[in-house]
Amino acid sequence: VFDRIRVPIADDEAWLRAMLDVEAALATAQARIGLASAHAAAAVAAACRSSQLDAAAIGREAADTGTPVVPLVHALRNALDGEAAELVHRGATSQDVVDTATMLLARDSLREVEGQLASAAAEAARLARTHRDTSMVARTLLQQALPTTFGLTAAGWMAGLDDARLGLATRRGRMPVQLGGAGGTLAAFGDRGVALVEQLAAELGLVAPVLPWHTRRGPIADLAGALGVAAGAVAKPARDIVLLSQTEVAEVAEGRAGRGGSSALPRKRNAIAAVSTIAAARQAPGLVATILAQMEQEHERAAGAWHAEWLPLRHLFSATASAAAWLADSLATLEVDEGAMATNLARSDGAILGERIVAAITPIVGGSEAERLVGGAEPFDVGIRRAFAADPRLAELDVEELLDPRGYLGLAGQLVDRALAAHAGATSAEGT
Amino acid sequence: VFDRIRVPIADDEAWLRAMLDVEAALATAQARIGLASAHAAAAVAAACRSSQLDAAAIGREAADTGTPVVPLVHALRNALDGEAAELVHRGATSQDVVDTATMLLARDSLREVEGQLASAAAEAARLARTHRDTSMVARTLLQQALPTTFGLTAAGWMAGLDDARLGLATRRGRMPVQLGGAGGTLAAFGDRGVALVEQLAAELGLVAPVLPWHTRRGPIADLAGALGVAAGAVAKPARDIVLLSQTEVAEVAEGRAGRGGSSALPRKRNAIAAVSTIAAARQAPGLVATILAQMEQEHERAAGAWHAEWLPLRHLFSATASAAAWLADSLATLEVDEGAMATNLARSDGAILGERIVAAITPIVGGSEAERLVGGAEPFDVGIRRAFAADPRLAELDVEELLDPRGYLGLAGQLVDRALAAHAGATSAEGT
Amino acid sequence: VFDRIRVPIADDEAWLRAMLDVEAALATAQARIGLASAHAAAAVAAACRSSQLDAAAIGREAADTGTPVVPLVHALRNALDGEAAELVHRGATSQDVVDTATMLLARDSLREVEGQLASAAAEAARLARTHRDTSMVARTLLQQALPTTFGLTAAGWMAGLDDARLGLATRRGRMPVQLGGAGGTLAAFGDRGVALVEQLAAELGLVAPVLPWHTRRGPIADLAGALGVAAGAVAKPARDIVLLSQTEVAEVAEGRAGRGGSSALPRKRNAIAAVSTIAAARQAPGLVATILAQMEQEHERAAGAWHAEWLPLRHLFSATASAAAWLADSLATLEVDEGAMATNLARSDGAILGERIVAAITPIVGGSEAERLVGGAEPFDVGIRRAFAADPRLAELDVEELLDPRGYLGLAGQLVDRALAAHAGATSAEGT
Amino acid sequence: VFDRIRVPIADDEAWLRAMLDVEAALATAQARIGLASAHAAAAVAAACRSSQLDAAAIGREAADTGTPVVPLVHALRNALDGEAAELVHRGATSQDVVDTATMLLARDSLREVEGQLASAAAEAARLARTHRDTSMVARTLLQQALPTTFGLTAAGWMAGLDDARLGLATRRGRMPVQLGGAGGTLAAFGDRGVALVEQLAAELGLVAPVLPWHTRRGPIADLAGALGVAAGAVAKPARDIVLLSQTEVAEVAEGRAGRGGSSALPRKRNAIAAVSTIAAARQAPGLVATILAQMEQEHERAAGAWHAEWLPLRHLFSATASAAAWLADSLATLEVDEGAMATNLARSDGAILGERIVAAITPIVGGSEAERLVGGAEPFDVGIRRAFAADPRLAELDVEELLDPRGYLGLAGQLVDRALAAHAGATSAEGT
Repeated sequence: VFDRIRVPIADDEAWLRAMLDVEAALATAQARIGLASAHAAAAVAAACRSSQLDAAAIGREAADTGTPVVPLVHALRNALDGEAAELVHRGATSQDVVDTATMLLARDSLREVEGQLASAAAEAARLARTHRDTSMVARTLLQQALPTTFGLTAAGWMAGLDDARLGLATRRGRMPVQLGGAGGTLAAFGDRGVALVEQLAAELGLVAPVLPWHTRRGPIADLAGALGVAAGAVAKPARDIVLLSQTEVAEVAEGRAGRGGSSALPRKRNAIAAVSTIAAARQAPGLVATILAQMEQEHERAAGAWHAEWLPLRHLFSATASAAAWLADSLATLEVDEGAMATNLARSDGAILGERIVAAITPIVGGSEAERLVGGAEPFDVGIRRAFAADPRLAELDVEELLDPRGYLGLAGQLVDRALAAHAGATSAEGT
Repeated sequence: VFDRIRVPIADDEAWLRAMLDVEAALATAQARIGLASAHAAAAVAAACRSSQLDAAAIGREAADTGTPVVPLVHALRNALDGEAAELVHRGATSQDVVDTATMLLARDSLREVEGQLASAAAEAARLARTHRDTSMVARTLLQQALPTTFGLTAAGWMAGLDDARLGLATRRGRMPVQLGGAGGTLAAFGDRGVALVEQLAAELGLVAPVLPWHTRRGPIADLAGALGVAAGAVAKPARDIVLLSQTEVAEVAEGRAGRGGSSALPRKRNAIAAVSTIAAARQAPGLVATILAQMEQEHERAAGAWHAEWLPLRHLFSATASAAAWLADSLATLEVDEGAMATNLARSDGAILGERIVAAITPIVGGSEAERLVGGAEPFDVGIRRAFAADPRLAELDVEELLDPRGYLGLAGQLVDRALAAHAGATSAEGT
Repeated sequence: VFDRIRVPIADDEAWLRAMLDVEAALATAQARIGLASAHAAAAVAAACRSSQLDAAAIGREAADTGTPVVPLVHALRNALDGEAAELVHRGATSQDVVDTATMLLARDSLREVEGQLASAAAEAARLARTHRDTSMVARTLLQQALPTTFGLTAAGWMAGLDDARLGLATRRGRMPVQLGGAGGTLAAFGDRGVALVEQLAAELGLVAPVLPWHTRRGPIADLAGALGVAAGAVAKPARDIVLLSQTEVAEVAEGRAGRGGSSALPRKRNAIAAVSTIAAARQAPGLVATILAQMEQEHERAAGAWHAEWLPLRHLFSATASAAAWLADSLATLEVDEGAMATNLARSDGAILGERIVAAITPIVGGSEAERLVGGAEPFDVGIRRAFAADPRLAELDVEELLDPRGYLGLAGQLVDRALAAHAGATSAEGT
Repeated sequence: VFDRIRVPIADDEAWLRAMLDVEAALATAQARIGLASAHAAAAVAAACRSSQLDAAAIGREAADTGTPVVPLVHALRNALDGEAAELVHRGATSQDVVDTATMLLARDSLREVEGQLASAAAEAARLARTHRDTSMVARTLLQQALPTTFGLTAAGWMAGLDDARLGLATRRGRMPVQLGGAGGTLAAFGDRGVALVEQLAAELGLVAPVLPWHTRRGPIADLAGALGVAAGAVAKPARDIVLLSQTEVAEVAEGRAGRGGSSALPRKRNAIAAVSTIAAARQAPGLVATILAQMEQEHERAAGAWHAEWLPLRHLFSATASAAAWLADSLATLEVDEGAMATNLARSDGAILGERIVAAITPIVGGSEAERLVGGAEPFDVGIRRAFAADPRLAELDVEELLDPRGYLGLAGQLVDRALAAHAGATSAEGT
């Protein structure tokens, strides 16, 4: 359920690869700005590329130092000699490598999450278009309230998904490289430290920060917050789908053949993709809290708070990506029952049109008389028809038209169009 | 400790005022676009302005409906008559008013939080400038690691505070108005609903959203995340101040006369402002999680999840503002003991310069010999001097210079300058 | 919504009173074991009783030291002289007073929470008894699954509330006094420290701990966990009530006249007490997390983590007590519509009896044939009747009886009786 | 760092095994009470024992139904025929199997966590005994406050660990079996349902609950709370170890050879086991919050909230067990520097004895004069000696004895003995 999508940041092999990419780029960047020979840098990069390191073994050795960088650097140096061996990791600290690798993996993982969000949003957009004018009942506090359309419901889902995706894309464009050395002063690079940070950022397609951010964790915390918002945006439509799928409501149903069965009740059709969406999305808030709580970091490297970020960040990516994938799946197979929507819309005998009737007759009979009349109608439509028949002042109004919920959809259609236009804009902007 | 700063969003009177402002603006906007007479709108606005409503009484009545808007609207209608009475709240739903009032209050409360962050950042900037070249020891995992400067430490604090403030200011500029009516379709406004949303946004200085966002809570959740990041950015320097104030370290001390005393130990001087900063900031992660968890909202109005946002949002604002104010206070009175910094820097007998010595002698003696030599020096400086004396190849190096930590500050000064320039930019941008 | 119940621990006046009670008991206990004169102790106790201290003023002064005890002690000493003045707070540290007062307030606040839980459980018990045999449909993943009874549903609510109450009562009986002095060594009391701790516990009706627990926060964290469990136990029935109240389900309705109205839709009847229950209960998980995160406390007094406990503990008590009170209210007024339950039970045309039919015919026709037959019936009851008519082997079975959901309630009635017996036991145990 | 200890509940193979154990016990229990033949039950049990199911494949199929039980039951039935095939899973629902398996795995995982806590507590007890009289300084708000002993510090760690272990052991003895069938009514077992629940509990060594608890999640939530408390109890000593290991304090050091190295600074010795403890323990609060938030479950089976429990419960067990194991490791290798403790104790020139001097001279010179005298001494010991010399009334007091911190340890030794006695009791009780 939770790791349906295997994001790079939750993959041990991808981690090892990313750390090797950082070590390679660090050597290359030093050569580019004249701090090392091109020859040595090429050797380091080649060793990083061809490395056959075993992620599990690195992980075991990592326990002794608290980071996987120590055994990684050791292995690389053993595979090289001379200037190349000395160039490996030169001037950097473990956290430079781990944090920069985290940014590379987060960037790739964001692409995955954004892709899943885009798929889900595209399905929601399809539903909004198709059902632009399919009337259904709006429910507030789970009570029938007023008419709306399924198109507007789906457009709301889509807008939430698009906003969340945009929030992630913005962060993806701002991922900072980490390089400061053990004291955060770039001391090992003479006067070329800032130039090296910029070169390293360029090598890796990251941003050069104003200062090293070893214990200034805004970039991580801000990213976590945006993932938490994305998980919430995904959970909202899933909750609606579960509710609309209830036996007594039955306005939608997940349609994937063979899915949603039960071990005891073979005929039941559960909205299992929406349920899985919710289960995955609900992992997020606690994980975000854990990451935020780690911002209080000591001095130039935290004793625990930094390490405590790693696991929740991975889980947060996995949970959010998986939740979005489950939602895309639920939406893609969703069967919409327009007949059930119409039946439920009629269920209140027109009582959900009380607001409309009050507004229509208030100019004629006055506000308090209007509320008395609407409040006393029971069953609603019968009572309203009787009241209109009894009061000649109301003869000019078409009571049947007033009692037709499909005629009180407000700007639902226009709002759908407006949202779809915004979606098209957000989608094409993404493509650039 | 926690409500040192009383932000508008945590103030019952300000809440009532904001809801009245929304009702007034709604009437005014309807008149502006021709949905009501200017006369009636003026009467509603006047009633809102002069209202003598009792926040506590409204709160008590609110319990019966779950929102304070029902008694508020009732009281306003009672104070008016005719078209004006009917214009009050016309076409809106409770959530339109509560959410829009929340945005107004959040905007004002953000200004307060940003102001406190700016004060704290200004103090950190002052310290960074003053102590640009004050050398101290960098500590990783709470162990002495390498030389750095207090200026760079303070610049890091400043950068975190500036980033957090910028994050909040960005949100402040995007606060969306809420208007959809009970079904979210703007049904009561004929074909003028979208125009009305835009007019209402203009009246209140808010943004008009693509769709109503009654159950699409991205704006609230995103704001909560940014406040959580701000609280974390505030906690970081406070933690450092507490650690640097330890009796055994004693590099800084909070200087407010009369503060920090103890009931049992009159001579102790506790870093009480920094402690209070931490206590307040640590409220944030759990509150952010609570708000994020409420994004899974049902249909067109949630049954509990919406209501569950209110309290944590207020507390989150109070805690973040208070934390920032305490930090500003701590920084403003901070006494920096350069002598203690120098003493601590010398405490390791130069062992924190191991990286430097290795780098200096590796080209001469080779990497493994360099590490052997540095690893065996005990006490460090004595051992290094002896080794240099014993090896004629090292005669060309100035061992005393190599052992002077003030000579191995890397780019600390340059990084401070760079950060101060960014700070100046961020500060002046804010002023526009 | 959130502070419907004003628990003592969230009341500033009660706080001041509790701290004065601790100071009085500390003086009295010292006299009882011979560390002070009875005369001086009586004077201190009298000063504590008659103190006219202003909670707000104490609060303001508290900001300078981080605790309210410093100004409190100062005021008491000023009101006394000689031995009595010197006896005030003698040998204690601020945290001794604040923690012990917290335990007193928590004990009283637990009584309030337990009382609300007991009221809610009593209402649930009444519903379980009254509706022991009222059949309704059981729903899994929000899909109709099998028949059950409303009695069993209510009995489940009751059992959850009873368990939660028992968990709190257990903690209430274990509240430890705090006394250690500034270093936690009881140094100021000569060799009588342990005796004094025991005497102080006896004076206040608390438990004497093995060691002072200034930075061993198990008692607070464990209490927070139990409150979090209680809030969750309260939320469960509220969620069910909201779902059963849906317009399309309509099996229950909150009956409080005048409550649940809407600003836009006067005819709607919202389950506002259940909604308020959910809103309050959802505050709990984040607050529990905040308290748990503070257990990592430094040395003999934490620099922030201790202070960070106070606010979430107060809010957690308020939220849990208020949630329980709202639930008791919802349950007390709940109208149960047995007819609607019967109608919904019949809605699946018997498909919820598939398990029963399979079990009945498997011994006759074999398992795979049974599943084929049940799987193919559409509409279910029609198909089953037809299949039974067509297969002479099934003639011995009474198909109409098999298709009656009221005949497939399993042990629902027996389980209700069992739960009510356990409830009666738990309730009478409480009274002892 | 985080999965140093692989608890059964976090192991996919152990999960599969536990579910098979539940299916086997269910068949056996049915036979024992006469609902099935012994022959069929034996066949089911044999199939469960010899099953060669592939956990990964089951996991993949599980995605379609939301639980792994559907493919598991399918595979078992395929491996059997006749009555035995029909007996597999008969009358149960997926959640019965998953929840009961969870209880089995939780029980085994608790044993692991308790074992690690016991190891850590044993190490703390050893330190408390060994250093019963080793004086050190007590620190409040990270400032030197009064003398204490390292024995008392270690005894406090031990007491917290013991309390946490006891809390877990209590839960381990209360794990309830889950059996209700799809509707929670035990409908498929005729009138033998309650007897079957009790038999199943007996087969598995679990407790029979009053009612099925499919959506009454107290047992899970309460367990999560206790694990959260345990993680906090583990974090506290780790934080102290990190602080006491600071270069400037240096009273303890982790002694594991080869551990704690740095990629850039080979000579540094980091308290890496304590740091890893903190990193793991900090995962807990957010995970507890996630589990607590899932208690609001719908009807007879939740749509997401149940599924959302699984992952955080596994991670919570892993994190707590790993944290405890890291702490045991840190404590086992801890080198205590009594000389450094003595040096730090002397660092304040006796100012930490202010309370003692005031108490000693107040009876002679009066309280306000005593505070004036102590407040003005600078350096403290010099000033006090001078004041004593100047005032003949103080001649009877031994100023050198009063200024010796080792003479002001209060009841530290007695408190250590008391705590060790309680530890011995808790430890032997465990063995029974």
